[in-house]
Amino acid sequence: MGTIKSIGILTSGGDAPGMNAAIRAVTRSAIYNGLKVYGIYRGYKGLVTDEIQEFKSQNVSNIIQMGGTILKTARCKEFTTPEGRAQAYENMKKHEIDALVIIGGDGSLTGARIFAQEFDVPCIGLPGTIDNDLYGTDTTIGYDTALNTILDAVDKIRDTATSHERLFFVEVMGRDAGFLALNGAIAAGAEAAIIPEFSTEVDQLEEFIEHGFRKSKSSSIVLVAESELTGGAMHYAERVKNEYPQYDVRVTILGHLQRGGRPTAHDRIIASRMGVASIQALLEGQRNVMIGIDDDKIVYVPFAKAIKNDKPIDRELVNVLHELSI
Amino acid sequence: MGTIKSIGILTSGGDAPGMNAAIRAVTRSAIYNGLKVYGIYRGYKGLVTDEIQEFKSQNVSNIIQMGGTILKTARCKEFTTPEGRAQAYENMKKHEIDALVIIGGDGSLTGARIFAQEFDVPCIGLPGTIDNDLYGTDTTIGYDTALNTILDAVDKIRDTATSHERLFFVEVMGRDAGFLALNGAIAAGAEAAIIPEFSTEVDQLEEFIEHGFRKSKSSSIVLVAESELTGGAMHYAERVKNEYPQYDVRVTILGHLQRGGRPTAHDRIIASRMGVASIQALLEGQRNVMIGIDDDKIVYVPFAKAIKNDKPIDRELVNVLHELSI
Amino acid sequence: MGTIKSIGILTSGGDAPGMNAAIRAVTRSAIYNGLKVYGIYRGYKGLVTDEIQEFKSQNVSNIIQMGGTILKTARCKEFTTPEGRAQAYENMKKHEIDALVIIGGDGSLTGARIFAQEFDVPCIGLPGTIDNDLYGTDTTIGYDTALNTILDAVDKIRDTATSHERLFFVEVMGRDAGFLALNGAIAAGAEAAIIPEFSTEVDQLEEFIEHGFRKSKSSSIVLVAESELTGGAMHYAERVKNEYPQYDVRVTILGHLQRGGRPTAHDRIIASRMGVASIQALLEGQRNVMIGIDDDKIVYVPFAKAIKNDKPIDRELVNVLHELSI
Amino acid sequence: MGTIKSIGILTSGGDAPGMNAAIRAVTRSAIYNGLKVYGIYRGYKGLVTDEIQEFKSQNVSNIIQMGGTILKTARCKEFTTPEGRAQAYENMKKHEIDALVIIGGDGSLTGARIFAQEFDVPCIGLPGTIDNDLYGTDTTIGYDTALNTILDAVDKIRDTATSHERLFFVEVMGRDAGFLALNGAIAAGAEAAIIPEFSTEVDQLEEFIEHGFRKSKSSSIVLVAESELTGGAMHYAERVKNEYPQYDVRVTILGHLQRGGRPTAHDRIIASRMGVASIQALLEGQRNVMIGIDDDKIVYVPFAKAIKNDKPIDRELVNVLHELSI
Repeated sequence: MGTIKSIGILTSGGDAPGMNAAIRAVTRSAIYNGLKVYGIYRGYKGLVTDEIQEFKSQNVSNIIQMGGTILKTARCKEFTTPEGRAQAYENMKKHEIDALVIIGGDGSLTGARIFAQEFDVPCIGLPGTIDNDLYGTDTTIGYDTALNTILDAVDKIRDTATSHERLFFVEVMGRDAGFLALNGAIAAGAEAAIIPEFSTEVDQLEEFIEHGFRKSKSSSIVLVAESELTGGAMHYAERVKNEYPQYDVRVTILGHLQRGGRPTAHDRIIASRMGVASIQALLEGQRNVMIGIDDDKIVYVPFAKAIKNDKPIDRELVNVLHELSI
Repeated sequence: MGTIKSIGILTSGGDAPGMNAAIRAVTRSAIYNGLKVYGIYRGYKGLVTDEIQEFKSQNVSNIIQMGGTILKTARCKEFTTPEGRAQAYENMKKHEIDALVIIGGDGSLTGARIFAQEFDVPCIGLPGTIDNDLYGTDTTIGYDTALNTILDAVDKIRDTATSHERLFFVEVMGRDAGFLALNGAIAAGAEAAIIPEFSTEVDQLEEFIEHGFRKSKSSSIVLVAESELTGGAMHYAERVKNEYPQYDVRVTILGHLQRGGRPTAHDRIIASRMGVASIQALLEGQRNVMIGIDDDKIVYVPFAKAIKNDKPIDRELVNVLHELSI
Repeated sequence: MGTIKSIGILTSGGDAPGMNAAIRAVTRSAIYNGLKVYGIYRGYKGLVTDEIQEFKSQNVSNIIQMGGTILKTARCKEFTTPEGRAQAYENMKKHEIDALVIIGGDGSLTGARIFAQEFDVPCIGLPGTIDNDLYGTDTTIGYDTALNTILDAVDKIRDTATSHERLFFVEVMGRDAGFLALNGAIAAGAEAAIIPEFSTEVDQLEEFIEHGFRKSKSSSIVLVAESELTGGAMHYAERVKNEYPQYDVRVTILGHLQRGGRPTAHDRIIASRMGVASIQALLEGQRNVMIGIDDDKIVYVPFAKAIKNDKPIDRELVNVLHELSI
Repeated sequence: MGTIKSIGILTSGGDAPGMNAAIRAVTRSAIYNGLKVYGIYRGYKGLVTDEIQEFKSQNVSNIIQMGGTILKTARCKEFTTPEGRAQAYENMKKHEIDALVIIGGDGSLTGARIFAQEFDVPCIGLPGTIDNDLYGTDTTIGYDTALNTILDAVDKIRDTATSHERLFFVEVMGRDAGFLALNGAIAAGAEAAIIPEFSTEVDQLEEFIEHGFRKSKSSSIVLVAESELTGGAMHYAERVKNEYPQYDVRVTILGHLQRGGRPTAHDRIIASRMGVASIQALLEGQRNVMIGIDDDKIVYVPFAKAIKNDKPIDRELVNVLHELSI
C-alpha cells in the first residue's frame, strides 16, 4: 500500500457523547495534514450503500458541543457478510479512500479488524462507548458524560424528602460492565451498586439489605446495572416488595438518556486528542490499532488486544463505596 | 383572635423544588415585619409530635438554591384524626404560635382547611407541587423546575441516533394532571403526549400510531403521564410490542428525580413573592386562603376554591403540539 | 391584498435563546396550514441581499433545543434606507413571499413597522429579546433562559467561601431595563440590584453600602445592569476601592454568554405558542401586530404600542428583594 | 509517636468544588477505621482560634454534591508566625488530635509542611485547587469542575450570532498555570488560549491575530488566563481596539464563579478515593505526603516534591488546539 491521501470516517454502534468532537478532530487534523476526508453515514451501512460525502473543515464547525453523532449510526447486517464487505471495499476504491477511522465500541472494532484483514485496508479505531469496557485505554469517549448524566439524576433523587425506609433503585446502562453503576454510586454518595461483575459471586441485593440498609436511618439509593439476565431495577423492586415488604420502593430507569447530552470537557478533550492521534498514527504507518489514553499519554492498542480482554473492576473502588456508605 | 405575633411554617406532601425558597421568604418577611417564626419539621407530623424550632434569619441562609425542603415532609396519619389535630393545636398554644403558613399541594391545603375551621387558627397556604394542579393560580412552586428536568431528559434522548421506527416512551409524573406531559412534549419537540385528561375520550396510543408515527421517518418520542390505571410507559411499551411488533421500543421512567434539583429562576421568584405575600396577607387579617399568582399579580384564593376545582388543560396547547409534531 | 400563500421568516437584532423554537413553530404551523415558507438569513440583510431559501419541515428538525438562531442575525444599514427597503421588497416579490414573520426586539419591530407601512406588506412580530422590554406581553422569548443563566452564575459565586466583608459585583445585561438584574437578584438571593430605572433617583451603591452591607456578616453579591453611562460593574468596583477600602471586591462580567444556551421549557413553550399564533393571525387577516402573552393567553399588540411604551418595573419586586436580603 | 486515634481535618486556600466530597470521605473512612474525627473551621485559622468540632458520620451527610466547603476557608496570618503555630499545636493537644488531613493547594501544603516539621505532627495533604498546578498528581480536586464551568460559559458564547470579525475574550483563572485556559479552549473548540507559560516567549495576541483570526470567516473566541502582569482580558481588549480597530471586541470575565458549582463525577470520585487513601496512609505510618493520582492509581507524593516542582504544560495539547482551530 502506498501513501495515504484520503481517509473515510464513520461512527458505529450505540452513540456516545463526544463522537462529534472526535469527528471534528479527525476531519480537521486530516485536512491540516493535507489529506482528503470523507464522512461515511450510518456506520458500516453507509460504506456498503455508498452514503459517503466529502468533508471540509466547515462540515465539522460548531459540532464539538453536540451530543449524538452527525454521521449517525446504524446496525448493518450486510457488513457481517463477505459480500457486504466486498461492496464496502468497492465503494472505498470508487471514492479513492485509502484508510478508515472508526469511532465505536467493541463490536465496531471487531468489524474493522475483520475488514482490515480481508482487504488490507489500514484502519484506526477510536474507543467511543459510554460503557468504558475497552481494554488498553483508561477511558472511552462518552463514559465521563454518561457518568455525569447519571450523577445529575441521582443528585435530584437524593433531594427528595428522606422518609424512613424508602429504597430507590436507579437503573443505569452497563449490561456487561459495572463501571457506570459503581463509579456513579461513589460519585453520587449512593448506598450500593449492583453490578454484573459480581452477579455470580453473591446475592448483591441480599447483602445490601442485610448489612447495609438495615442500619440506615433514612432513604437509600441503589444503582443497578441493566441486565437482561436479572431483569434490572424492576426485578429488584419486585423482590424487595415480596421479601422485605416493610420498605417503600421506587424505581427510576434512565435508559437512552444516558447516551445523549452535551459532552463533558473530559470527553471532548480525549476525543480531540485521539482524533489528532489517529491521523498521526496513519501518517506513521500504523494500522489496525485503537488509539487509547494510558497515564494521560496517547497509546496504540492492537485491535485484538482491545477487544479480547476484559477490563477489570478495580477492587479499590468497591472498597471506597463500601467505606463511605456507612 | 388578637394580633398575630408569631407564625409557624411547614412543608407537606411530596416535595417540590422551590419549597426552600418559600421557607426562606416566609421566614425573612415575618422577621422583617416583627414576627417570631417557628419551623415545624416533617409537615403536620412535627406539629403533632412537637418537632418545632424557632427560626432566625440565618436558619434560612444559603437555602434558596437547594432542592427538597429543609423542613422535610412526611405523611401523618395522626393529623387525619380529631385527637391528632387537638394535639397539634396544643403544641401551637405551647409555643404561642398564632398562625400557620403551609406549603404543599391539594392534600396539604385540605388538611389546613379542616384544622383552621376546627380551631379557628389563621392558615395561609402556598401552592407547592410539581403537578401544577391547584385552581386559582397560574403556576405552582416546583412545576417549572420539574418541567425543565423532564426537558433535559428528553433532549438527551433525542440526541441518540435517529434509527428508523424506534419509539421512545418517557414516563413523567402527573397521575391526575397532564400539565407536565403535555407542556414537556411541546417544549421538547416530542411527537405526542398521553395524558389522564383524555384517557376516557380516546385511545391515545392508537391515535398516535395510526395518525402520527406512521408518517414519521425517524424516531418518535412520546411522553406518558404515570398512571396506576393504565400502568404507564411499561404498559404502552408492552402494547406496542404486541400490536405493532415492527417498532423498536425503549422506555425511560424518570420517577422521583422530577421532584428534586436546583429550582429554576421562575420557581424561586414566585416562591419568594408568595412567601412575602403570605405574611402580608396575615397582617391584613386574611385567613384560610391560598396565595396564588394570576396574570403575574398576587391573588388570594379561598382554600375551598383552590382545592375543589379542577384546573383544565388548555386546548390551545393540545393544538400546538399537534401542529408542530408534523 | 389577496390571500396569503407564502411567508418569509427572519430573526433580527441580538440573538435570544428560543428563537430556533420560534422558527420551527412558524415554519411547521405555516406548512400545516398549507403555506410555503422561506427562511431569510441574517435578518433584514438577507432580505436585501436575497439570502432566501425555501424551508420544509425537516429544515427545522432537531433545532428546538439549540441556542442562537439557525437563520443568523446581523445589523443591516441598507434596510434603514428607502433604497434598501425597496430592494428588500423586490426580493419578496421575486420569491412571491406575501407576508413576513419577524422575530426580534424593539429595533427589529420598528423596522418591520416602517417596511409594512411603505410597501403594504403584512408583518407579524414575535418578541425575541432577553431584555424583556417590550410592552404588551408578559414575557419575551429568551428572557427566562437568560435569567436562569444569570442564576447559575450567581449560585456558583455564592458557593465560594463566605469570607467577611467581601463584595461581589456581577454585571448582567439590560442597558435600559432592569428586569434581568432585579429578578436575577431575587432568584439568586443576592443582596442588591443596581438597575437603570433607578439610576437618576438615588445613588444605589451608596444606599446598599450604608443600609445593607454594613449589617451583613459575610459576603454580599450585587447584580449590576450593564451601562455605558456608569461603566457598569468595573465602575462600581473602582468606587468601592476608593470610597470603602475596607471591602475586598471581586468582579464577574457575564457578557454575551447571557445570549446563548439551551432555551428553557418556558421559552420554548411561548416560542412554540407564539409561532403557531403568528400563522393564525395572518390567516385571520391580522397585520402589523406583535404576538404577545398576557395572563397566559395569546394577544395581538399593535407594533406602535409594543415599541413606544416603556414596560415598568413592578415595585412589588423591589420590595421582595428588599425584605428578603436582610 | 504512638498510634493515631483521632484526626483533624481542614480546608485551606481558595475553595474548589469537591472539597466537601473529600471532607466526607476523610470523615467516614476515619470513623470506619475506628478513629475520632474533628472538623476544623476556616482552615489554619480555626486551628489557632480553636474553632474545632467533633464530626460524626451524619455531619457529612448530603454534602457530597455541594460546591464550596462546609468547613469554610480563610487566610490566616497568625499561622505564618511561630507563636500562631504554637497556639495551633496547643489546640491539637487539647482536643487530643494526633494527625491532620489538609485539603488545599500549594500554599496550604507549604503551611502543613512547616507545621509538621516544627511539631512532629503527621500531616497528610489532599490536592484541592481548581488550578491543577500541583506536581506528582495527574489531577487536583476541583479542576475538572472548573473546566466544565468554563466550557458551559464558552458554549453559550459560541451560540450567539456569528457576526463577521467579532472577537470574544473570555478570562479564566490560572494566574500561574494555563491548564484551565488551554484545556478549556480545546474542549470548547475555541480559537486560541493565552497562557502564562508562554507569556515571555512570544506575543500570543499578535500571533493569534496574524496567523489565526485573519483567515477566520466568523467570530473567534480566545481564552485568556487572568494575569496581574498583563491585565488579562480587559488589557487584550484594549490592545485590539487600538491596534486592530476593524474588529468588534467583547469581554467576559468569569471570576469567582469558577470556584463554585456542583462538583463533577470525576472530582467527587477522586476526592472520595483520596479521602479514603489519606486515612489508609496515616494507618500505614505515612506522614507529610500529599495523596496523588498517577495513572489512575493512588500515590504518595512528599510535600517538598509536590510543592517545589512546576507541572509543565504538555506540548501535545498545544498542538491539538493549533491543528483543530483551522
